[in-house]
Amino acid sequence: MKVHADLCVIPMGVGVSVGEYIAECQRVLCEAGLTHHMHAYGTNIEGEWDEVMAAIKQCHERVHALGAPRISTTLKLGTRTDRSQSLQDKIDSVESKLDQ
Amino acid sequence: MKVHADLCVIPMGVGVSVGEYIAECQRVLCEAGLTHHMHAYGTNIEGEWDEVMAAIKQCHERVHALGAPRISTTLKLGTRTDRSQSLQDKIDSVESKLDQ
Amino acid sequence: MKVHADLCVIPMGVGVSVGEYIAECQRVLCEAGLTHHMHAYGTNIEGEWDEVMAAIKQCHERVHALGAPRISTTLKLGTRTDRSQSLQDKIDSVESKLDQ
Amino acid sequence: MKVHADLCVIPMGVGVSVGEYIAECQRVLCEAGLTHHMHAYGTNIEGEWDEVMAAIKQCHERVHALGAPRISTTLKLGTRTDRSQSLQDKIDSVESKLDQ
Repeated sequence: MKVHADLCVIPMGVGVSVGEYIAECQRVLCEAGLTHHMHAYGTNIEGEWDEVMAAIKQCHERVHALGAPRISTTLKLGTRTDRSQSLQDKIDSVESKLDQ
Repeated sequence: MKVHADLCVIPMGVGVSVGEYIAECQRVLCEAGLTHHMHAYGTNIEGEWDEVMAAIKQCHERVHALGAPRISTTLKLGTRTDRSQSLQDKIDSVESKLDQ
Repeated sequence: MKVHADLCVIPMGVGVSVGEYIAECQRVLCEAGLTHHMHAYGTNIEGEWDEVMAAIKQCHERVHALGAPRISTTLKLGTRTDRSQSLQDKIDSVESKLDQ
Repeated sequence: MKVHADLCVIPMGVGVSVGEYIAECQRVLCEAGLTHHMHAYGTNIEGEWDEVMAAIKQCHERVHALGAPRISTTLKLGTRTDRSQSLQDKIDSVESKLDQ
Protein backbone atom coordinates (compact mmCIF):
# COMPACT_ATOMS: atom_id res chain seq x y z
CA MET A 1 0.00 0.00 0.00
CA LYS A 2 1.48 3.31 -1.14
CA VAL A 3 1.03 6.33 1.10
CA HIS A 4 1.36 10.09 0.83
CA ALA A 5 2.36 11.52 4.20
CA ASP A 6 2.89 14.97 5.61
CA LEU A 7 5.07 14.94 8.73
CA CYS A 8 5.45 17.73 11.27
CA VAL A 9 7.60 16.83 14.30
CA ILE A 10 7.55 19.21 17.28
CA PRO A 11 10.25 18.62 19.91
CA MET A 12 9.21 19.88 23.35
CA GLY A 13 11.37 20.82 26.31
CA VAL A 14 14.29 22.03 24.19
CA GLY A 15 13.55 25.75 23.81
CA VAL A 16 12.07 27.61 20.87
CA SER A 17 14.71 26.81 18.24
CA VAL A 18 14.13 23.36 16.87
CA GLY A 19 15.90 23.49 13.50
CA GLU A 20 18.57 20.97 14.45
CA TYR A 21 15.89 18.38 15.29
CA ILE A 22 14.07 18.98 12.02
CA ALA A 23 17.38 18.64 10.17
CA GLU A 24 17.90 15.27 11.85
CA CYS A 25 14.51 14.11 10.54
CA GLN A 26 15.54 15.20 7.03
CA ARG A 27 18.65 13.03 7.39
CA VAL A 28 16.51 10.05 8.41
CA LEU A 29 14.30 10.49 5.33
CA CYS A 30 17.35 10.78 3.04
CA GLU A 31 18.96 7.69 4.54
CA ALA A 32 15.69 5.80 4.07
CA GLY A 33 15.75 6.66 0.37
CA LEU A 34 12.23 8.06 0.51
CA THR A 35 10.98 10.74 -1.89
CA HIS A 36 10.35 13.76 0.30
CA HIS A 37 9.97 17.52 0.04
CA MET A 38 10.29 19.87 3.01
CA HIS A 39 8.03 22.92 3.25
CA ALA A 40 7.75 25.58 5.94
CA TYR A 41 5.35 23.58 8.16
CA GLY A 42 6.27 19.95 7.56
CA THR A 43 7.59 17.50 5.00
CA ASN A 44 5.73 15.63 2.24
CA ILE A 45 6.81 11.98 1.94
CA GLU A 46 5.75 9.27 -0.47
CA GLY A 47 6.51 5.57 -0.43
CA GLU A 48 5.38 2.17 0.73
CA TRP A 49 3.40 2.39 3.99
CA ASP A 50 5.81 0.23 6.03
CA GLU A 51 8.91 2.10 4.84
CA VAL A 52 7.38 5.51 5.52
CA MET A 53 6.25 4.42 8.98
CA ALA A 54 9.64 2.92 9.81
CA ALA A 55 11.28 6.24 8.93
CA ILE A 56 8.82 8.20 11.07
CA LYS A 57 9.52 5.94 14.05
CA GLN A 58 13.22 6.53 13.50
CA CYS A 59 12.61 10.30 13.46
CA HIS A 60 11.12 10.03 16.96
CA GLU A 61 13.98 7.82 18.17
CA ARG A 62 16.69 10.11 16.80
CA VAL A 63 15.06 13.34 18.00
CA HIS A 64 14.85 11.81 21.49
CA ALA A 65 18.48 10.68 21.18
CA LEU A 66 19.51 14.26 20.33
CA GLY A 67 18.07 15.36 23.67
CA ALA A 68 14.38 16.16 23.24
CA PRO A 69 12.49 14.59 26.17
CA ARG A 70 9.08 14.97 24.56
CA ILE A 71 7.78 15.04 20.97
CA SER A 72 4.36 15.83 19.55
CA THR A 73 3.99 14.99 15.88
CA THR A 74 1.18 15.75 13.47
CA LEU A 75 1.02 13.35 10.55
CA LYS A 76 -1.32 13.24 7.56
CA LEU A 77 -1.67 9.96 5.69
CA GLY A 78 -3.33 9.59 2.30
CA THR A 79 -4.01 6.25 0.60
CA ARG A 80 -6.12 5.40 -2.44
CA THR A 81 -7.08 2.24 -4.27
CA ASP A 82 -8.64 3.77 -7.38
CA ARG A 83 -5.42 4.82 -9.08
CA SER A 84 -1.77 5.64 -8.45
CA GLN A 85 -0.78 9.27 -8.04
CA SER A 86 2.52 10.91 -7.14
CA LEU A 87 2.98 13.95 -4.90
CA GLN A 88 3.74 15.98 -8.02
CA ASP A 89 0.57 14.72 -9.75
CA LYS A 90 -1.50 16.26 -6.96
CA ILE A 91 0.14 19.66 -7.39
CA ASP A 92 -0.11 19.47 -11.20
CA SER A 93 -3.82 18.63 -10.97
CA VAL A 94 -4.61 21.79 -8.98
CA GLU A 95 -2.32 24.00 -11.06
CA SER A 96 -3.90 22.86 -14.32
CA LYS A 97 -7.29 23.93 -12.95
CA LEU A 98 -5.90 27.33 -11.97
CA ASP A 99 -4.55 27.86 -15.50
CA GLN A 100 -7.92 27.30 -17.11
CA MET B 1 8.54 3.11 22.87
CA LYS B 2 5.06 3.98 24.18
CA VAL B 3 2.95 6.38 22.15
CA HIS B 4 -0.18 8.46 22.67
CA ALA B 5 -2.01 8.82 19.38
CA ASP B 6 -5.08 10.67 18.19
CA LEU B 7 -6.52 9.16 15.02
CA CYS B 8 -9.02 10.79 12.65
CA VAL B 9 -9.76 8.77 9.51
CA ILE B 10 -11.67 10.50 6.69
CA PRO B 11 -12.99 8.22 3.94
CA MET B 12 -13.42 10.04 0.62
CA GLY B 13 -15.61 9.16 -2.33
CA VAL B 14 -18.34 7.53 -0.22
CA GLY B 15 -20.72 10.41 0.42
CA VAL B 16 -21.15 12.53 3.53
CA SER B 17 -22.11 9.80 6.01
CA VAL B 18 -19.02 7.99 7.17
CA GLY B 19 -20.14 6.47 10.48
CA GLU B 20 -19.90 2.89 9.27
CA TYR B 21 -16.23 3.39 8.35
CA ILE B 22 -15.44 4.95 11.70
CA ALA B 23 -17.22 2.06 13.43
CA GLU B 24 -14.97 -0.36 11.51
CA CYS B 25 -11.90 1.46 12.85
CA GLN B 26 -13.27 1.11 16.39
CA ARG B 27 -13.58 -2.65 15.79
CA VAL B 28 -9.95 -2.78 14.63
CA LEU B 29 -8.79 -1.01 17.81
CA CYS B 30 -10.87 -3.34 20.01
CA GLU B 31 -9.54 -6.45 18.27
CA ALA B 32 -5.99 -5.12 18.70
CA GLY B 33 -6.59 -4.88 22.45
CA LEU B 34 -5.45 -1.26 22.53
CA THR B 35 -6.67 1.24 25.12
CA HIS B 36 -8.69 3.78 23.17
CA HIS B 37 -11.34 6.42 23.68
CA MET B 38 -13.47 7.84 20.88
CA HIS B 39 -14.40 11.52 20.92
CA ALA B 40 -16.37 13.59 18.42
CA TYR B 41 -13.38 14.35 16.15
CA GLY B 42 -11.12 11.32 16.48
CA THR B 43 -9.98 8.58 18.82
CA ASN B 44 -7.28 8.66 21.50
CA ILE B 45 -5.12 5.52 21.53
CA GLU B 46 -2.27 4.47 23.78
CA GLY B 47 0.12 1.55 23.47
CA GLU B 48 3.43 0.36 22.12
CA TRP B 49 4.42 2.25 18.93
CA ASP B 50 4.50 -0.83 16.70
CA GLU B 51 1.14 -2.13 17.91
CA VAL B 52 -0.57 1.23 17.51
CA MET B 53 0.87 1.67 14.02
CA ALA B 54 -0.12 -1.85 12.97
CA ALA B 55 -3.70 -1.09 14.02
CA ILE B 56 -3.73 2.18 12.10
CA LYS B 57 -2.52 0.42 8.96
CA GLN B 58 -5.30 -2.11 9.43
CA CYS B 59 -7.82 0.72 9.74
CA HIS B 60 -6.79 1.95 6.28
CA GLU B 61 -6.92 -1.58 4.84
CA ARG B 62 -10.36 -2.33 6.26
CA VAL B 63 -11.88 1.04 5.34
CA HIS B 64 -10.67 0.49 1.76
CA ALA B 65 -12.06 -3.07 1.88
CA LEU B 66 -15.47 -1.66 2.93
CA GLY B 67 -15.53 0.35 -0.28
CA ALA B 68 -13.81 3.69 0.32
CA PRO B 69 -11.48 4.36 -2.64
CA ARG B 70 -9.57 7.14 -0.91
CA ILE B 71 -8.70 7.95 2.72
CA SER B 72 -7.11 11.00 4.29
CA THR B 73 -6.11 10.52 7.92
CA THR B 74 -4.85 13.02 10.46
CA LEU B 75 -2.79 11.43 13.21
CA LYS B 76 -1.13 12.97 16.26
CA LEU B 77 1.70 11.06 17.91
CA GLY B 78 3.14 11.88 21.32
CA THR B 79 6.20 10.20 22.82
CA ARG B 80 8.30 11.10 25.86
CA THR B 81 11.42 9.74 27.49
CA ASP B 82 11.31 11.69 30.76
CA ARG B 83 8.51 9.75 32.41
CA SER B 84 5.55 7.50 31.73
CA GLN B 85 2.11 9.03 31.54
CA SER B 86 -1.28 7.57 30.65
CA LEU B 87 -3.99 9.27 28.59
CA GLN B 88 -5.94 9.76 31.83
CA ASP B 89 -2.90 11.30 33.57
CA LYS B 90 -2.89 14.06 30.94
CA ILE B 91 -6.55 14.90 31.55
CA ASP B 92 -6.11 14.72 35.35
CA SER B 93 -3.14 17.08 35.17
CA VAL B 94 -5.15 19.80 33.43
CA GLU B 95 -8.24 19.29 35.58
CA SER B 96 -6.25 19.58 38.81
CA LYS B 97 -4.97 22.96 37.61
CA LEU B 98 -8.52 24.08 36.82
CA ASP B 99 -9.66 23.16 40.34
CA GLN B 100 -7.05 25.32 42.01
CA MET C 1 -21.96 28.86 9.78
CA LYS C 2 -21.68 26.30 12.59
CA VAL C 3 -18.36 24.53 13.06
CA HIS C 4 -17.06 21.49 14.90
CA ALA C 5 -13.47 22.06 15.93
CA ASP C 6 -10.78 20.02 17.61
CA LEU C 7 -8.08 22.19 19.15
CA CYS C 8 -4.62 21.06 20.29
CA VAL C 9 -2.35 23.88 21.47
CA ILE C 10 1.36 23.10 21.98
CA PRO C 11 3.36 25.75 23.84
CA MET C 12 7.07 25.65 22.95
CA GLY C 13 10.03 26.97 24.91
CA VAL C 14 8.47 26.31 28.33
CA GLY C 15 9.71 22.82 29.15
CA VAL C 16 7.90 19.51 28.96
CA SER C 17 5.04 20.23 31.37
CA VAL C 18 2.38 22.27 29.65
CA GLY C 19 -0.71 21.56 31.76
CA GLU C 20 -1.03 25.12 33.06
CA TYR C 21 -1.21 26.46 29.48
CA ILE C 22 -3.84 23.92 28.49
CA ALA C 23 -5.82 24.82 31.62
CA GLU C 24 -5.73 28.48 30.53
CA CYS C 25 -7.24 27.49 27.16
CA GLN C 26 -10.02 25.65 28.99
CA ARG C 27 -10.75 28.85 30.92
CA VAL C 28 -10.95 30.80 27.65
CA LEU C 29 -13.46 28.30 26.23
CA CYS C 30 -15.56 28.44 29.42
CA GLU C 31 -15.58 32.23 29.46
CA ALA C 32 -16.61 32.23 25.79
CA GLY C 33 -19.62 30.09 26.68
CA LEU C 34 -18.75 27.53 24.01
CA THR C 35 -19.74 23.87 24.27
CA HIS C 36 -16.47 22.00 24.61
CA HIS C 37 -15.13 18.66 25.77
CA MET C 38 -11.47 18.04 26.61
CA HIS C 39 -9.90 14.70 25.73
CA ALA C 40 -6.33 13.48 26.17
CA TYR C 41 -5.01 14.99 22.91
CA GLY C 42 -7.11 18.11 22.37
CA THR C 43 -10.52 19.64 22.95
CA ASN C 44 -13.70 19.32 20.89
CA ILE C 45 -15.54 22.62 20.46
CA GLU C 46 -18.80 23.45 18.73
CA GLY C 47 -20.34 26.82 17.94
CA GLU C 48 -20.64 29.59 15.42
CA TRP C 49 -17.49 29.89 13.27
CA ASP C 50 -16.65 33.46 14.35
CA GLU C 51 -17.12 32.75 18.05
CA VAL C 52 -15.02 29.60 17.93
CA MET C 53 -12.26 31.38 16.02
CA ALA C 54 -12.29 34.36 18.39
CA ALA C 55 -11.80 31.97 21.31
CA ILE C 56 -8.92 30.18 19.59
CA LYS C 57 -7.19 33.51 18.94
CA GLN C 58 -7.62 34.35 22.61
CA CYS C 59 -6.07 30.99 23.55
CA HIS C 60 -2.92 31.98 21.63
CA GLU C 61 -2.88 35.45 23.20
CA ARG C 62 -3.30 34.17 26.73
CA VAL C 63 -0.80 31.32 26.38
CA HIS C 64 1.76 33.86 25.12
CA ALA C 65 0.82 36.18 28.02
CA LEU C 66 1.49 33.33 30.47
CA GLY C 67 5.04 33.16 29.17
CA ALA C 68 5.18 30.80 26.20
CA PRO C 69 7.27 32.47 23.47
CA ARG C 70 6.13 30.09 20.72
CA ILE C 71 2.97 28.08 20.05
CA SER C 72 2.18 25.44 17.45
CA THR C 73 -1.50 24.52 17.26
CA THR C 74 -3.22 21.77 15.33
CA LEU C 75 -6.86 22.53 14.60
CA LYS C 76 -9.51 20.46 12.83
CA LEU C 77 -12.55 22.26 11.45
CA GLY C 78 -15.71 20.54 10.23
CA THR C 79 -18.60 22.30 8.52
CA ARG C 80 -21.61 20.91 6.67
CA THR C 81 -24.52 22.39 4.78
CA ASP C 82 -26.64 19.24 4.37
CA ARG C 83 -27.92 19.04 7.95
CA SER C 84 -27.17 20.15 11.49
CA GLN C 85 -25.35 17.76 13.78
CA SER C 86 -24.01 18.12 17.31
CA LEU C 87 -20.75 16.72 18.63
CA GLN C 88 -22.79 14.12 20.54
CA ASP C 89 -24.72 13.16 17.39
CA LYS C 90 -21.43 12.15 15.76
CA ILE C 91 -20.50 9.87 18.65
CA ASP C 92 -24.02 8.41 18.85
CA SER C 93 -23.97 7.66 15.12
CA VAL C 94 -20.82 5.54 15.40
CA GLU C 95 -21.90 3.84 18.63
CA SER C 96 -25.26 2.84 17.15
CA LYS C 97 -23.40 1.10 14.33
CA LEU C 98 -21.18 -0.72 16.82
CA ASP C 99 -24.21 -2.00 18.71
CA GLN C 100 -25.71 -3.61 15.62
CA MET D 1 -0.27 38.92 15.76
CA LYS D 2 1.44 37.29 12.77
CA VAL D 3 0.70 33.63 12.07
CA HIS D 4 2.18 30.85 9.98
CA ALA D 5 -0.56 28.48 8.89
CA ASP D 6 -0.73 25.23 6.99
CA LEU D 7 -4.16 24.60 5.50
CA CYS D 8 -5.52 21.29 4.19
CA VAL D 9 -9.18 21.39 3.14
CA ILE D 10 -10.93 18.06 2.45
CA PRO D 11 -14.30 18.29 0.71
CA MET D 12 -16.54 15.29 1.48
CA GLY D 13 -19.48 13.95 -0.48
CA VAL D 14 -18.10 14.99 -3.88
CA GLY D 15 -16.21 11.90 -4.98
CA VAL D 16 -12.49 11.21 -4.94
CA SER D 17 -11.31 14.02 -7.21
CA VAL D 18 -11.16 17.26 -5.28
CA GLY D 19 -8.73 19.34 -7.34
CA GLU D 20 -11.31 21.92 -8.38
CA TYR D 21 -12.14 22.66 -4.73
CA ILE D 22 -8.48 23.03 -3.83
CA ALA D 23 -8.02 25.35 -6.82
CA GLU D 24 -10.89 27.50 -5.50
CA CYS D 25 -9.07 27.82 -2.14
CA GLN D 26 -5.93 28.94 -4.00
CA ARG D 27 -8.02 31.65 -5.69
CA VAL D 28 -9.30 32.82 -2.30
CA LEU D 29 -5.74 33.10 -0.96
CA CYS D 30 -4.60 35.02 -4.06
CA GLU D 31 -7.54 37.41 -3.86
CA ALA D 32 -6.77 37.98 -0.17
CA GLY D 33 -3.23 39.03 -1.11
CA LEU D 34 -1.72 36.56 1.36
CA THR D 35 1.73 35.03 0.89
CA HIS D 36 1.12 31.35 0.34
CA HIS D 37 2.81 28.29 -1.11
CA MET D 38 0.95 25.12 -2.10
CA HIS D 39 2.58 21.74 -1.49
CA ALA D 40 1.26 18.24 -2.11
CA TYR D 41 -0.64 17.96 1.19
CA GLY D 42 -1.73 21.51 2.00
CA THR D 43 -0.77 25.15 1.63
CA ASN D 44 1.56 27.28 3.76
CA ILE D 45 0.17 30.75 4.49
CA GLU D 46 1.65 33.68 6.36
CA GLY D 47 0.04 36.95 7.41
CA GLU D 48 -1.85 38.75 10.13
CA TRP D 49 -4.00 36.36 12.19
CA ASP D 50 -7.33 38.02 11.33
CA GLU D 51 -6.60 38.18 7.60
CA VAL D 52 -5.49 34.56 7.44
CA MET D 53 -8.54 33.42 9.39
CA ALA D 54 -10.91 35.47 7.21
CA ALA D 55 -9.46 33.78 4.13
CA ILE D 56 -9.85 30.32 5.65
CA LYS D 57 -13.50 31.02 6.46
CA GLN D 58 -13.98 32.13 2.88
CA CYS D 59 -12.40 28.88 1.65
CA HIS D 60 -15.09 26.93 3.53
CA GLU D 61 -17.86 29.19 2.21
CA ARG D 62 -16.71 28.94 -1.41
CA VAL D 63 -16.07 25.18 -1.32
CA HIS D 64 -19.61 24.71 0.03
CA ALA D 65 -20.90 27.10 -2.67
CA LEU D 66 -19.18 24.95 -5.33
CA GLY D 67 -21.27 22.00 -4.17
CA ALA D 68 -19.44 20.22 -1.36
CA PRO D 69 -21.95 19.48 1.41
CA ARG D 70 -19.31 18.67 4.03
CA ILE D 71 -15.74 19.80 4.66
CA SER D 72 -13.12 18.59 7.11
CA THR D 73 -10.08 20.85 7.35
CA THR D 74 -6.79 20.33 9.15
CA LEU D 75 -5.06 23.58 10.04
CA LYS D 76 -1.73 24.20 11.75
CA LEU D 77 -1.15 27.61 13.34
CA GLY D 78 2.22 28.88 14.53
CA THR D 79 2.72 32.12 16.47
CA ARG D 80 5.75 33.47 18.31
CA THR D 81 6.53 36.52 20.40
CA ASP D 82 10.32 36.14 20.64
CA ARG D 83 11.15 37.24 17.11
CA SER D 84 9.72 37.60 13.62
CA GLN D 85 10.37 34.84 11.12
CA SER D 86 9.12 34.29 7.58
CA LEU D 87 8.10 30.95 6.07
CA GLN D 88 11.32 31.02 4.06
CA ASP D 89 13.41 31.71 7.20
CA LYS D 90 12.17 28.42 8.65
CA ILE D 91 13.25 26.46 5.58
CA ASP D 92 16.60 28.28 5.40
CA SER D 93 17.27 27.52 9.07
CA VAL D 94 16.92 23.77 8.55
CA GLU D 95 18.81 23.76 5.25
CA SER D 96 21.76 25.62 6.76
CA LYS D 97 22.03 22.90 9.40
CA LEU D 98 21.93 20.20 6.72
CA ASP D 99 24.80 21.86 4.87
CA GLN D 100 27.09 21.81 7.88
